[in-house]
Amino acid sequence: MISKECIQKQIIEAITNVKKKNPMAASITNTVTINFVANAQLAVGGSAAMIYLPDEAEALAKAGNAMYINFGTLLPVYEESIPLAVKTLHDQKKPLIIDPVGIGAGSLRKKLLNLLKNYKPDVIRGNASEIIALANLWGLPSGVARSGIRGVDSTDEVISAKQAAISLSKWTGGTVTVSGEIDLITDGSHIIFSYGGSPFFKIITGSGCSLGGVIAIYATVSSPLIAALTAVSIYNLAGKRAERSIHGPGHFQVQFLDELYKATAEDVAANLFTIEEI
Amino acid sequence: MISKECIQKQIIEAITNVKKKNPMAASITNTVTINFVANAQLAVGGSAAMIYLPDEAEALAKAGNAMYINFGTLLPVYEESIPLAVKTLHDQKKPLIIDPVGIGAGSLRKKLLNLLKNYKPDVIRGNASEIIALANLWGLPSGVARSGIRGVDSTDEVISAKQAAISLSKWTGGTVTVSGEIDLITDGSHIIFSYGGSPFFKIITGSGCSLGGVIAIYATVSSPLIAALTAVSIYNLAGKRAERSIHGPGHFQVQFLDELYKATAEDVAANLFTIEEI
Amino acid sequence: MISKECIQKQIIEAITNVKKKNPMAASITNTVTINFVANAQLAVGGSAAMIYLPDEAEALAKAGNAMYINFGTLLPVYEESIPLAVKTLHDQKKPLIIDPVGIGAGSLRKKLLNLLKNYKPDVIRGNASEIIALANLWGLPSGVARSGIRGVDSTDEVISAKQAAISLSKWTGGTVTVSGEIDLITDGSHIIFSYGGSPFFKIITGSGCSLGGVIAIYATVSSPLIAALTAVSIYNLAGKRAERSIHGPGHFQVQFLDELYKATAEDVAANLFTIEEI
Repeated sequence: MISKECIQKQIIEAITNVKKKNPMAASITNTVTINFVANAQLAVGGSAAMIYLPDEAEALAKAGNAMYINFGTLLPVYEESIPLAVKTLHDQKKPLIIDPVGIGAGSLRKKLLNLLKNYKPDVIRGNASEIIALANLWGLPSGVARSGIRGVDSTDEVISAKQAAISLSKWTGGTVTVSGEIDLITDGSHIIFSYGGSPFFKIITGSGCSLGGVIAIYATVSSPLIAALTAVSIYNLAGKRAERSIHGPGHFQVQFLDELYKATAEDVAANLFTIEEI
Repeated sequence: MISKECIQKQIIEAITNVKKKNPMAASITNTVTINFVANAQLAVGGSAAMIYLPDEAEALAKAGNAMYINFGTLLPVYEESIPLAVKTLHDQKKPLIIDPVGIGAGSLRKKLLNLLKNYKPDVIRGNASEIIALANLWGLPSGVARSGIRGVDSTDEVISAKQAAISLSKWTGGTVTVSGEIDLITDGSHIIFSYGGSPFFKIITGSGCSLGGVIAIYATVSSPLIAALTAVSIYNLAGKRAERSIHGPGHFQVQFLDELYKATAEDVAANLFTIEEI
Repeated sequence: MISKECIQKQIIEAITNVKKKNPMAASITNTVTINFVANAQLAVGGSAAMIYLPDEAEALAKAGNAMYINFGTLLPVYEESIPLAVKTLHDQKKPLIIDPVGIGAGSLRKKLLNLLKNYKPDVIRGNASEIIALANLWGLPSGVARSGIRGVDSTDEVISAKQAAISLSKWTGGTVTVSGEIDLITDGSHIIFSYGGSPFFKIITGSGCSLGGVIAIYATVSSPLIAALTAVSIYNLAGKRAERSIHGPGHFQVQFLDELYKATAEDVAANLFTIEEI
């Protein structure tokens, strides 16, 4: 089993290296929270580049060291851009981070997410509903039969997606993270629970989307598991701290970006998490 | 004539039910203020889902209990998505809330707004210029002959759109609300004036767009008239309160979201409004 | 040589006239920072209108007194919209302000920026890397041979783009401004350096994009050189002031909009700049 100390050391390295190298991770992401994704990536020390067109997706997949694809607000051009981005990342052996938001709505999303099955994303981030739905779409054991669309909210508890998350990570050989009151991260061999955050994460738009973008930034300098855990930990720490000084969702967003920016590598590594072997 | 007490009771119910049920209203809305629309919908207790593609528009029109269509920043795909969304809502007898922003610019907007005439939106929200222009486009008496494009600003006083608003509401059988210093809301039988708000509403982008999105949230649990009045009242209250503690448009937006979130049902119902019979 | 006093008088006039006239400058701009562009334009007293469709681009190019085109996040529809907008502005003799963000990525951007060479934009705004890349693309002397894509960050010092900026302004007969720690503005005959700003400009997204939008607002009432210098000066003043009271990028954005709104014409004119003849 991985030791906690070893993981904490890697978290510190991930944060430090991002601040030193200012790495770029390109994104194909929804128009609702695209600004918040970019600002969160910049706040942790990364660099952002968002694209829509196929040849730009290809160029940026090559130019960056990781890429983030978020399936919210699909546009017609994504029918070409996403397959090309994914293929390019695969050829270049660069990490792909996805957020299957909105899974269940529309034929293009279904088609693209089906395609992704064989490209095996390095990190999949979603809420419990989305992780269960993705496992079901890919025909992997989720322990839950269900369908339905309901915006981008989680209607399931994190723990209900445990089996789906494990199935997905065993299939991809990568990491899956389920966002909720207590976050779950698994690489198929370990389950890590990360604590903290804020109820305001659900009263603003973009806390999940931007987490995916920040995972991509850390994935430019570390393994999928460490990238996901580092991003989840800084979100839980910054969310908890942001909540202390504010009284509503407007100021929460603003303070949250400040806390992402101010969090030290040591503080993030010290944010509570627990490890279980599967 | 409806009694003020009866209306206030319904406002309290609308606000309470939204906070309890967390209802989803999907939106097709402009890219400029799409984030603010979603955050405002979440701040009052609703749930947001934004879409572009035709089949997603159809799916979300079925999945939600009301839908918001804002005509700013049209994209080519809207030529298919908006007609399909509108038809689906009509078949499902679910409320449609529109904001005819940018009316007068471009052939697609004109074509879509002409199509809307026969689908009779349940709530139409605009500034005076837009409401007059829509009545003129639909060949309804507005009392004002005019044309012109000028971004998204109101260049007319609310009261100048009174006849246009009444004509539109008599045609649709729904509610029309005209935003300005004093807001006007009419269902064709009554005129309600709502007071409050802030001059900062015109120095930020999205106060009007997001109001339409919040009307859609309340329309999932109440009549078009009550949905519009509840949303206008919470905006006028939150705007007035937000202005007290801030010194510029940046902090106004942030504080305004906080005040939307903090406003109690009773405070909103107590925000000043007057009723006249037509 | 132009006297400093004469320039300061024109800055004061530009700011005063914008606050009095509330002029509209339409934009074709990226989805990442589109909200920030609009809010910055409103904060200085202007009016915003963003478009995607070709016939709307044409209509707004006619309706406004200047237009801003930012080349970030290109969409397929821009292949038609941008050429039509540019041609219309040219026929109407109205100022065109461009930001060649992302230059080097993708074939559409290259094609459109090549087309722009003969339309000679009135103001070109970019960071050093972008200004050098544009001069190289147009076959003008830049003193630097280079290529590469790296999101929207400056990887070069402002001064390294001096020759490229002069070449571009001599070609267009307009103004070029290079953003960085010290900003450079040139009309081909003079070099102006503007001081102030904040390191947070690089830790948030949109400071450059929104500067282009604000230049367009001032270009509705003044010459390209004065429009660029006025916008750069108010940004440097507001950035410097915003930084004083904040501790992170979240609050910086909010406070920056407040400072744009509060800056007086006299304070902006007094913001430090120096002039050199070429």
